Amino acid sequence: MENQLTGNVLVAQSGGPTAVINASLAGVITEALNHECIEEIYGGLNGIEGILNEQLIDLAAESQQTVRGLRYTPAAALGTCRYKITGEQDYSRFVEVCKAHNIRYFFYIGGNDSQDTAAKIAEHAKTLDYEMRVIGIPKTIDNDLTMTDHCPGYGSVVKNLATMIRELALDHEAMGNHDLVSIVEVMGRNAGWIAAGTSIARRRNHFEDAPHIILLPEVAFSPEYFLAQVQECLKKNKFCLVVTSEGITDTNGNYVAAGNSQDSFGHSQLGGVGEYLQDLVSKNIAGVKARSCKLGHSQRAAAHCSSLADNNEAFMCGQEAVRAAVAGESGKMVALVRGDTEKYSCETALVDLSSVANGVKHFPENWIGEDKISVNYQFNKYILPLIQGEVQVPFENGLPAYVYLAKVKVEQKLPPRNLQ
Amino acid sequence: MENQLTGNVLVAQSGGPTAVINASLAGVITEALNHECIEEIYGGLNGIEGILNEQLIDLAAESQQTVRGLRYTPAAALGTCRYKITGEQDYSRFVEVCKAHNIRYFFYIGGNDSQDTAAKIAEHAKTLDYEMRVIGIPKTIDNDLTMTDHCPGYGSVVKNLATMIRELALDHEAMGNHDLVSIVEVMGRNAGWIAAGTSIARRRNHFEDAPHIILLPEVAFSPEYFLAQVQECLKKNKFCLVVTSEGITDTNGNYVAAGNSQDSFGHSQLGGVGEYLQDLVSKNIAGVKARSCKLGHSQRAAAHCSSLADNNEAFMCGQEAVRAAVAGESGKMVALVRGDTEKYSCETALVDLSSVANGVKHFPENWIGEDKISVNYQFNKYILPLIQGEVQVPFENGLPAYVYLAKVKVEQKLPPRNLQ
Repeated sequence: MENQLTGNVLVAQSGGPTAVINASLAGVITEALNHECIEEIYGGLNGIEGILNEQLIDLAAESQQTVRGLRYTPAAALGTCRYKITGEQDYSRFVEVCKAHNIRYFFYIGGNDSQDTAAKIAEHAKTLDYEMRVIGIPKTIDNDLTMTDHCPGYGSVVKNLATMIRELALDHEAMGNHDLVSIVEVMGRNAGWIAAGTSIARRRNHFEDAPHIILLPEVAFSPEYFLAQVQECLKKNKFCLVVTSEGITDTNGNYVAAGNSQDSFGHSQLGGVGEYLQDLVSKNIAGVKARSCKLGHSQRAAAHCSSLADNNEAFMCGQEAVRAAVAGESGKMVALVRGDTEKYSCETALVDLSSVANGVKHFPENWIGEDKISVNYQFNKYILPLIQGEVQVPFENGLPAYVYLAKVKVEQKLPPRNLQ
Repeated sequence: MENQLTGNVLVAQSGGPTAVINASLAGVITEALNHECIEEIYGGLNGIEGILNEQLIDLAAESQQTVRGLRYTPAAALGTCRYKITGEQDYSRFVEVCKAHNIRYFFYIGGNDSQDTAAKIAEHAKTLDYEMRVIGIPKTIDNDLTMTDHCPGYGSVVKNLATMIRELALDHEAMGNHDLVSIVEVMGRNAGWIAAGTSIARRRNHFEDAPHIILLPEVAFSPEYFLAQVQECLKKNKFCLVVTSEGITDTNGNYVAAGNSQDSFGHSQLGGVGEYLQDLVSKNIAGVKARSCKLGHSQRAAAHCSSLADNNEAFMCGQEAVRAAVAGESGKMVALVRGDTEKYSCETALVDLSSVANGVKHFPENWIGEDKISVNYQFNKYILPLIQGEVQVPFENGLPAYVYLAKVKVEQKLPPRNLQ
């Protein structure tokens, strides 16, 4: 172990929760315990926002049972935030909090905004001549983070949704309806990774299986083409199951459904794109029953049906962040690198935080089918390893026994934050 | 074994699928193989409708692997229907099909409509002097069937939804939002059993836990009272999670949300009651973020998170139906009877089909909390045993390996059905 710096760890979570963001937290805690240069392990409540308010908890005080339980507990045990750090004052305050608690290692688990924040904190500490190592840990169900093959959180949301869609398809098939159009709205405002992922719900050699139509934000939505494809599908199949990204846009780049507003056809609308498509089908295809469902945030929290591969990689990213920091690295994010052998393998690497910040990795154009409503075998090869294995969530009295942190508070040492 | 009648079995499924309706089918097949008086085991495709069209398959030709797989495969492997049998002609045709295939045992797995159909078929066969024994097997996620303590299918939908709500609550809690109202729309058009069931998502001794507000069809909906309760909840909790039955009604008994129509306030609306409540909150409570989700039919198909107790009872009902018929019973439905000891036990009994037909068991008034938005400990005691244990669904390549029947067709012996 070279380049040791003695002091405390601070770890925090940011942005939308996932089924495995706590596995990364468990990875940080577990690995931190292995290094003598690390004295205390603190958690920052509600991301940057809580840290600025000096809301720290003592993670070493949590029971081993609880830390083990973080491996399968969804959401973000430390709490998260959407706070955007702004300007000099915030950064100085952040470093001040770190100094007061001798924080020498800061780990931030989050998406691209959070990696941006982490990058700026690293720079700022340097400017202020405070020695602190900052490592980002990737997290997002959207899988739109650049510089990493894929992102912890993605495999699990896809496994959950594909399971749900396979079950929903069985239900629809059982009803024997030749006139049912069923629309499932999934997350993904800017990139279609999640919607695309549901394609694996199809059984092998059953290319006529659901989902029959996948709508991605990367493909401009045409109502006419969509309706024609639905009709085509109904001719061949018992029903038509459509998966749509919440963020599909029209040819002008405007969201097809933008909440309480008018759609591109001048109809006023309530609700999301699922409701919109349901209405579109009902009004334009005679004799068809249209339904929609919208899973909301439950899809990203479904640890009970999460991917073991994803969970293991999330844990590994947490561990690796600590190892890298102890070895002297800073200003980096842990990335996942896929091996180029036939059999899937995945290792970590370090990439510059600044190169990750605020980029968006769109779904590759050449993985989209010629019909623009499907994805091809290249994507299939990409996604399959990411959903392998099942996380064994313990159930107690019939329900998942998720853990809750004891949250032993660390005594505050600074005057309250000045929010003038 | 007394009262034997030698011939073939016909089993069919009806109404909305559930996570365990195939477990009942597996129970019928498995038990039928034990009785020498039973020669062939046929399945009717798509309920009564398929049988009238003489669409029978040979269930004895299915592999043992497949029959075992039915135990954990959701939806209805034989297909189902919403066909309402009408008049003399249909009943005569039905008996004609049975005669042609020497069907002496008919098992119909379904809800109250289906039990009504089964009752009439039994009567009609008697009138036509055709000896055939008819036994109904209960099935409905709604749990609104009379004459049975509870209904196969119910425990599983509750287990799935409560799991989902516990996860969703963790997600909301992590976001630290004091201004989030999250609405989950669940099934239940006439009775609130499903919505009430989600109350078990609360952790023990955490009565402030989600779901905070439960809206039942049994309680007339008052927008003013609802909004006041939401505001009260937001003062105390990080967020307010509302579970609503799709079928809540206003004081006049009109559905609060009735699809593409005007609501009771004269607003035109698209979508269900979840969207309606979301809109109501957004427009009437300043500074609050409202979200809604609607799980649609996925909630009743979620075998991957289904109750083992429910599954075992569904299987037992199938077995029991065969045993009863072989013993000479007819015109009965298998009902579930709860033991009156402290420790839960459940046995089957036979009840008259005609007494079940078309009744609706509402959620008991004395199980509803005084605040009308919660349920009490009596319900808790009722529901807990029904969600115990987890069905172990095998996963293959990352997804549930559900089975599909080979559906070997039984040769038709009659001229096509006359649908003049």
